Amino acid sequence: MMQAAVATAKVWIGGEWRESDAEGVFEPENPSTGEKLGREFPVSRWSDCDRALTAAAEVASELEHIPAEKIAAFLEKYAAELEANAEAIVQAAHEETALPVSPRLKDVELPRTTDQLRQAAAAARQGTWRRVTIDRAKKLYSCMAPIGPVVVFGPNNFPFAFNGVSGGDFAAAIAAGNPVIAKAHPLHAYTSQLMAEAAAKALDGSGLPPATVQMIYKVNHEVGQRLVSDPRIGATGFTGSKGAGLKLKHAADAVGKPIYLEMSSLNPVVFLPEGLKENVQKWAKELADSCTAGSGQFCTRPNLAFLIAGDAAESFLREVAAAFNSREPHALLSSSTRDQLHESIRALKAAGATVVTGGRNLPGNGYRYASTLLHVSGKAFLSAPHDLQREAFGNEVMAVVAANQDELLDALDCLEGNLTGCFYSSASGADDALYARLAPVMRRKVGRLLDDKMPTGVAVSPAMNHGGPYPATGHPGFTAVGIPASIARFTALQCYDNVREERLPAFLREK
Amino acid sequence: MMQAAVATAKVWIGGEWRESDAEGVFEPENPSTGEKLGREFPVSRWSDCDRALTAAAEVASELEHIPAEKIAAFLEKYAAELEANAEAIVQAAHEETALPVSPRLKDVELPRTTDQLRQAAAAARQGTWRRVTIDRAKKLYSCMAPIGPVVVFGPNNFPFAFNGVSGGDFAAAIAAGNPVIAKAHPLHAYTSQLMAEAAAKALDGSGLPPATVQMIYKVNHEVGQRLVSDPRIGATGFTGSKGAGLKLKHAADAVGKPIYLEMSSLNPVVFLPEGLKENVQKWAKELADSCTAGSGQFCTRPNLAFLIAGDAAESFLREVAAAFNSREPHALLSSSTRDQLHESIRALKAAGATVVTGGRNLPGNGYRYASTLLHVSGKAFLSAPHDLQREAFGNEVMAVVAANQDELLDALDCLEGNLTGCFYSSASGADDALYARLAPVMRRKVGRLLDDKMPTGVAVSPAMNHGGPYPATGHPGFTAVGIPASIARFTALQCYDNVREERLPAFLREK
Repeated sequence: MMQAAVATAKVWIGGEWRESDAEGVFEPENPSTGEKLGREFPVSRWSDCDRALTAAAEVASELEHIPAEKIAAFLEKYAAELEANAEAIVQAAHEETALPVSPRLKDVELPRTTDQLRQAAAAARQGTWRRVTIDRAKKLYSCMAPIGPVVVFGPNNFPFAFNGVSGGDFAAAIAAGNPVIAKAHPLHAYTSQLMAEAAAKALDGSGLPPATVQMIYKVNHEVGQRLVSDPRIGATGFTGSKGAGLKLKHAADAVGKPIYLEMSSLNPVVFLPEGLKENVQKWAKELADSCTAGSGQFCTRPNLAFLIAGDAAESFLREVAAAFNSREPHALLSSSTRDQLHESIRALKAAGATVVTGGRNLPGNGYRYASTLLHVSGKAFLSAPHDLQREAFGNEVMAVVAANQDELLDALDCLEGNLTGCFYSSASGADDALYARLAPVMRRKVGRLLDDKMPTGVAVSPAMNHGGPYPATGHPGFTAVGIPASIARFTALQCYDNVREERLPAFLREK
Repeated sequence: MMQAAVATAKVWIGGEWRESDAEGVFEPENPSTGEKLGREFPVSRWSDCDRALTAAAEVASELEHIPAEKIAAFLEKYAAELEANAEAIVQAAHEETALPVSPRLKDVELPRTTDQLRQAAAAARQGTWRRVTIDRAKKLYSCMAPIGPVVVFGPNNFPFAFNGVSGGDFAAAIAAGNPVIAKAHPLHAYTSQLMAEAAAKALDGSGLPPATVQMIYKVNHEVGQRLVSDPRIGATGFTGSKGAGLKLKHAADAVGKPIYLEMSSLNPVVFLPEGLKENVQKWAKELADSCTAGSGQFCTRPNLAFLIAGDAAESFLREVAAAFNSREPHALLSSSTRDQLHESIRALKAAGATVVTGGRNLPGNGYRYASTLLHVSGKAFLSAPHDLQREAFGNEVMAVVAANQDELLDALDCLEGNLTGCFYSSASGADDALYARLAPVMRRKVGRLLDDKMPTGVAVSPAMNHGGPYPATGHPGFTAVGIPASIARFTALQCYDNVREERLPAFLREK
């Protein structure tokens, strides 16, 4: 590869692709091969952020008063541009993430992403997110309004659907009329660049100011913390690791800036004993499928499987282990993803878990890791509940085998906040009494409670909740998926009191 | 007074009035006279809180499934009990706060409080706060649900309407089905005790568990911080000083516990120049009324009056000063309220303000302070915008006199977050061009924007917003007044995915 010939990619600030004031560069690689992809991207200094913040603050007022129709038309045009460039975008994402082209990237994630943009467009037009409340007798008018420039940090595992420049947070923030500063994930920098170019095309002629969308690729922690706490921003959306998320949360909290984080979730799945006897193979296959699809790199992938000790539980674990051993794992997103998975498994072992199968890197091309089943007794779990609730991001699951129903209840009562919690139970009703004891405990710990179904696969429905109690997110009242509810995060409540009719925003006037 | 005869009041924990595990006691006094009222209240140790948290956590699940009708009936019975005991309660509050019996306590604040409780009852019955969203095709059901035990810290300035055991946060938290641990304000401890006794009567026979409402009187900062960050609580509501609020916010944020704070607001009022020429006396009277009513001890009382230099501005300030001098101030809530007001005025002077009138304690009975008008130039304000945005809680206002329109715009652009912001302008339209420049800047800084009207007097209307950007509150998306919107603070978003029909909460089932 001819390093000298590579030009560093430009950042997209104030409507222009411009040289970054970079403190360094990075080169994405193909995780299937470990080879550099021959592209170079900048690590932005504060000055890039500062410029983007100034531009965003300038356009925020203009966007506030732009007709919703123009915002909706932009979102739809952007969706169409992504579709028109689908082949190049999917190929770039495949190279950068090792995720399969089909069905994952081309047939699932990209259509989901354009669907989200179109749902956001419909929500912008419909305007229910404003929750307009009028008390004419008192001349009081309330509505939700754009909160101001939104910074969106996208995660490594969804190059499209959660990307800072195209994903759910982006769509929600734009739908409410906020400018977005996207912080692309460095692992799919080129994919992000292509998507941003599509956004730029869609912005052109849209009537929206050019700085409505801006993008940088990477910043160091200190710059990131300064970004989310800057007086010019309204709020931040973050999807990523708990470590990085908590650093940003701390900075934003200290100055009262709302920050919405999706950080860490173990997604417990409880297999109730009577049903398990009848469904050992079926349920084992469902769990193994859920833990290995996309190499387990989903925020809703089960990390914890709860069982009650007995023959059925033993058969079940043997089936899961066999399924893990029989499938060839795909590459993980990066070498550091693999290192972190290995480190998490090491930490879980140190806390008392034993390896049933897996627990090691796989040889050959790509950053692959053996699908790993860990085991811990309910008693051991109860003796180190914090250390054993460590997210292992990748193709892994830990079975917690309780001695009896009471121990299972105690274990669920120790759970920290999660996005999801599931119960598999007998169709006959034979597990219903136990379900009635356990479900209320689980309900308090999770944003989405499921029956008889794995938590992976998050439908983009108005009735979805992709949220939950801390540390799954930073606030249990909000969802990152599900339009229009997800828009609420990027809005502020504004009241007009005795304001003269002609000075009210058009949508609040009587006529 | 015979100290030996005074029994320390009991705390209300787990449905019983019990001896506090106190680390000390305090004795409220009458701020009109400075005399002790002959009652002794405990400062609770952590063990009191711990006991209350355990009781609250125990009843939280039960409350979650109690029919809304029972919650509504309790709130209404409580309102009726307060009315039945109005005379004693009003008298107690008058003695503890020096606020006038009539109209303030008896005719305004108590009716407002019972009205809030009844509005909350209606909202509980109606259930719109749940925001039920159903996607039957996908078997997804979402709703807001009680967030869990809520701790409510009431402020010093509203013995009824914001009291932890009877006010807006209380009503909102109960309406959603959460148990409340009230932290009464020590300045009106006996009033709180009487109200809690009314709540206890209303609870009796209501079908709600006895620990639905609990109350303690005082804790030290460390215990307070431990309380708001305890794993057993769902959220906290706090109304009070910025100093105390930020300590609690820091503790709650660190463990991801939602905390809703109403902390500090300067409520800027802008008098536009053309209108001012026509309305010097009228507007000066309105400002003076707003700053001296209740001795200015309102969270929405104007601390800042913005003017453009000129003859009208000078006449206006003379009128305000004359009004201040001609009225006999009432006693403030306590000696420390007066000390803090004096200290704030000292700090504002140190930052560049000059005293036009006032700035001193008044002799005679009670903790009285001369109504104080400060003056600062726009230029001086711009040179120390942070130090000059210090809340002075009491009968005070600072005029910021800008040299011209641009300086006024710059000054408004420096404002921190506030609950309210007002513009007074000419009815003729002569100020409209300037309004159009200034109002968008103010809009971003405040929760409620007013025209031609003082911000004091917060209507309990569904269209009210008693909230705003930090540091007025901790989050700009929520309101502390206005039902049902205020209920949202004490709820969590819960989704049911593929959950069997018979296991869903009754209100989500198809039939």
